[in-house]
Amino acid sequence: MTDRTVAHATFSIERKYDATPARVFRAFEDPAAKRRWFAEGEEGWEVESFDASFEVGSFERSRFRFKGGPLITNDTVYQDIVPNERIIISYSMTVDGRRISASLATMEFRKEGKGTRLIYTEQGAYLDGLDQVEQRRIGCEEILETLAKELERDSAAA
Amino acid sequence: MTDRTVAHATFSIERKYDATPARVFRAFEDPAAKRRWFAEGEEGWEVESFDASFEVGSFERSRFRFKGGPLITNDTVYQDIVPNERIIISYSMTVDGRRISASLATMEFRKEGKGTRLIYTEQGAYLDGLDQVEQRRIGCEEILETLAKELERDSAAA
Repeated sequence: MTDRTVAHATFSIERKYDATPARVFRAFEDPAAKRRWFAEGEEGWEVESFDASFEVGSFERSRFRFKGGPLITNDTVYQDIVPNERIIISYSMTVDGRRISASLATMEFRKEGKGTRLIYTEQGAYLDGLDQVEQRRIGCEEILETLAKELERDSAAA
Repeated sequence: MTDRTVAHATFSIERKYDATPARVFRAFEDPAAKRRWFAEGEEGWEVESFDASFEVGSFERSRFRFKGGPLITNDTVYQDIVPNERIIISYSMTVDGRRISASLATMEFRKEGKGTRLIYTEQGAYLDGLDQVEQRRIGCEEILETLAKELERDSAAA
């Protein structure tokens, strides 16, 4: 008997930002911005390393902990980049050395009035009972909320 | 206006092989075997290059044509490997320099009697109208049929 299981699931999150597609896209492209909203995020997250990359076929690697907890890793590979329009990544995560998921995530940036509708679609394989799609969706919603704060910050600085 | 579109879809193929999970898994792991059934496949496929790799975080790259047609590329990254049990990859494909898809594919190897049930699940993003899930499913079914022939060949040689 094996305890290996794979739960395949897909979810989408739509989020409106008061910033143009080019500005929202730039928050993904710019390594300093991406580190702030994606890796550092809200209070409690401790970034051990964030090796940014933003080109198709490149790896972007993050190593972090939440409030002194176990090491969490995220290894992302850029699959497709269409400037200001679309980013597709694959990424896998481990917690304490155990792989919890592998995912394909598509981000579509659509102009809507003076802002942007971001459509985030994750097609995930959640592994061995170590992660669940509901939890992943909540995590992604939180990250897309910190992106909103990054864009406000960027806007205030402009 | 943009002509960029993403069609997200998931499909599964189940295939029974008269070979143990270890033997089926080996056909993925062994670069010479993998080149035969995956890259060369049936008549008409011309392999320009096949750079094998079989470790998590590594790229495996194939370049090929069908009957002198346009260049087709497949860049695969291994996301998860559990020997004899599970392989998860991400892969993206281009035809004539245009990206047609990015996918996450899970292969589960389950012992069934003296054989193996392979469950192949693809979660794909089919891009800009250049590929369709129905077509991809047919292609995968063909490849899993050439794997059956590889296993018969392997069996005859043993």
